[in-house]
Amino acid sequence: MITLINGEPGSRIEAIDRGLQFGDGVFETLRLEAGRPALWARHWMRLCRGLDRLGIPRPGEQDCLDELARASLQVPSMAKLIVTRGPGPRGYAPPPRVRPTRIVMGGAPLDIPGTSDILRLGVCRTRVARSPLPGCKHLNRLENVLARREWAEDWDEGLMLDAAGRVRCATQSNVFVLEAGVLLTPGLSAHGVAGTRRGWLLDHAGAFGLPVRETSLTLERVRRSDAVFLTSARLGLRRAALVTQRGRPTDGNLGVASVLERIREMGEHMNALG
Amino acid sequence: MITLINGEPGSRIEAIDRGLQFGDGVFETLRLEAGRPALWARHWMRLCRGLDRLGIPRPGEQDCLDELARASLQVPSMAKLIVTRGPGPRGYAPPPRVRPTRIVMGGAPLDIPGTSDILRLGVCRTRVARSPLPGCKHLNRLENVLARREWAEDWDEGLMLDAAGRVRCATQSNVFVLEAGVLLTPGLSAHGVAGTRRGWLLDHAGAFGLPVRETSLTLERVRRSDAVFLTSARLGLRRAALVTQRGRPTDGNLGVASVLERIREMGEHMNALG
Repeated sequence: MITLINGEPGSRIEAIDRGLQFGDGVFETLRLEAGRPALWARHWMRLCRGLDRLGIPRPGEQDCLDELARASLQVPSMAKLIVTRGPGPRGYAPPPRVRPTRIVMGGAPLDIPGTSDILRLGVCRTRVARSPLPGCKHLNRLENVLARREWAEDWDEGLMLDAAGRVRCATQSNVFVLEAGVLLTPGLSAHGVAGTRRGWLLDHAGAFGLPVRETSLTLERVRRSDAVFLTSARLGLRRAALVTQRGRPTDGNLGVASVLERIREMGEHMNALG
Repeated sequence: MITLINGEPGSRIEAIDRGLQFGDGVFETLRLEAGRPALWARHWMRLCRGLDRLGIPRPGEQDCLDELARASLQVPSMAKLIVTRGPGPRGYAPPPRVRPTRIVMGGAPLDIPGTSDILRLGVCRTRVARSPLPGCKHLNRLENVLARREWAEDWDEGLMLDAAGRVRCATQSNVFVLEAGVLLTPGLSAHGVAGTRRGWLLDHAGAFGLPVRETSLTLERVRRSDAVFLTSARLGLRRAALVTQRGRPTDGNLGVASVLERIREMGEHMNALG
C-alpha cells in the first residue's frame, strides 16, 4: 500500500494528532480509474463541507488529486483521503495555529462481490445516532465498526436503523428501495453519511425516467418493496435483498422487470463516470 | 511531554491504526499524584468495559500503571492512557489478529481555575447524541470538539443538551445540581461519559449525609437549582454557575449554606483519594 502524509511517503503520524485523539477530521473513500477519482467533484464538495463545519483549513484540491494519482495502481482501485486538524496540545480546544494532516492511502485493488449477484443484507442491532456533522464523512466511525462486527457469515452488508427504528443506511453504503416504480432513500438531515453515488442518483435518476425521493423507511417497508439497492464508491449501484427474503416474487411482474433493467443501465452509466 | 507507545518511548503511530481511521478505541484522562493515578480502580473498570464492548484485548493492568508512573512528573499532573484496536487493513472489519496500540501520554502539570472561584458555565448549541458505547470514554469525540469551540471568552465550561433538550453533561465534565438538599445528576444510560468522580459521588455522597440520584434535568431546572457542580478527574468537584446567573440568592439561605459546606468537604475528601 502506498501512503503519503502531507505529500511525503511515510506510514506514521504523530500520536498527538487530533485525528487519533478525538476523530477530529474527515475522509473520503474513492474509486480510482487510471489514477483519477470517479465523481471527484462530489467527494471534494463533501470533504470541504466537513472541513468548513469543523473549522479545519482546506488542503489544496490539486495537491489532493496529484497525491491520489501518485498513490494509485494501474488497475481500478480504492484509495482513502483523510484530513485531520493535525497535532494539538492536551484537551479539546483546537490549537491557535492549525497544521492539518493530509493522508492519502492508495493501492487497494477494487474487490467487490460478483456483479451479477444480489447482495445479501442483514439487519444490525447497532443503531445510527444523530451525527455531529450530518451527511459528512467524519472520523468518528465507531457505530460502523460495531455494526460491521455483527455481520453473519452469509451477509454482504447490514442495514442500520436509527433509535426510532427507521432504516437510515447500511454499514458502509446508502440504501434505496423501489416501490411502485419510485426509488426511495432515507433522508439524512440528521443521521449518516450522504454518499456521492446517493447524491448522483438523487440528481440524475429522473433523467433515466426513474422518479426518486427521500422519505422515511421502516424495515417493514423495505421488506415489502419491489427491490432493494445499495450505493457506495466501491459498489457503485448494486441490487440487494434481505437474507430473510429468499424469493423475489415481484421480479416476474413485467412492470417491475423493465424498471429493474432501467436501474441496472443507470448504474452502469454511473459507474463509467470519471 | 513524555509519550510511551506499547511501553517504548516514541511519539508516532502507524497511519493505518484504527484509532485514527475510525476512533476505534477508548481512553482515560487521569490525575497523577506521585506517579499514581487517583481513583485508578474506577478508571480501569471503565477502560475495560469499553474494550470488552469493542472486543479489543485488554492491556495488562500493571503495564499501564508502570507506564503511567514512568510518564509522570514529580508534581500533580494529568496523563492520558489510550488503547486502540491497533493497525488494520482497509475497511471497518477488524483484522483477524488484533495487536492493540497502548499510548501513555504524561507530563502535563495540573492546571485548573482558582479553587475558590465559581466556574462560569455557558450552554452549547452542539447536542449530545446517543453514544455507541454509553458511559464509556471512546475516541469518537467530535461532539466535544465542536462544543469546546463554542466556548465564549468568559466561559470555564459549557453545558451540553441531548436532542430532546435535556442537560446531559458539560464539554469535559459531568454535571450535578443541588435541589432541596438533594444532589441530582443526569442519567447516562444512552448518552455521554460516566465520569469516575461522578461514579464516586453516586456511591459515597450518602455517607456524607447528601442524598444523590440520577434524574432528567432540563436547563430550566438547572437554572432554578440551589447550586450547580461539575466533576472531572482534572477539576475534582467544583461549584459552577450559569454565566447568565449573576447573583446566587440561595447562598444566603442558612440551610443551603450548610449543605454547600458539606459538599465542599466531600469534594476535598474525594480529591485527596489516591
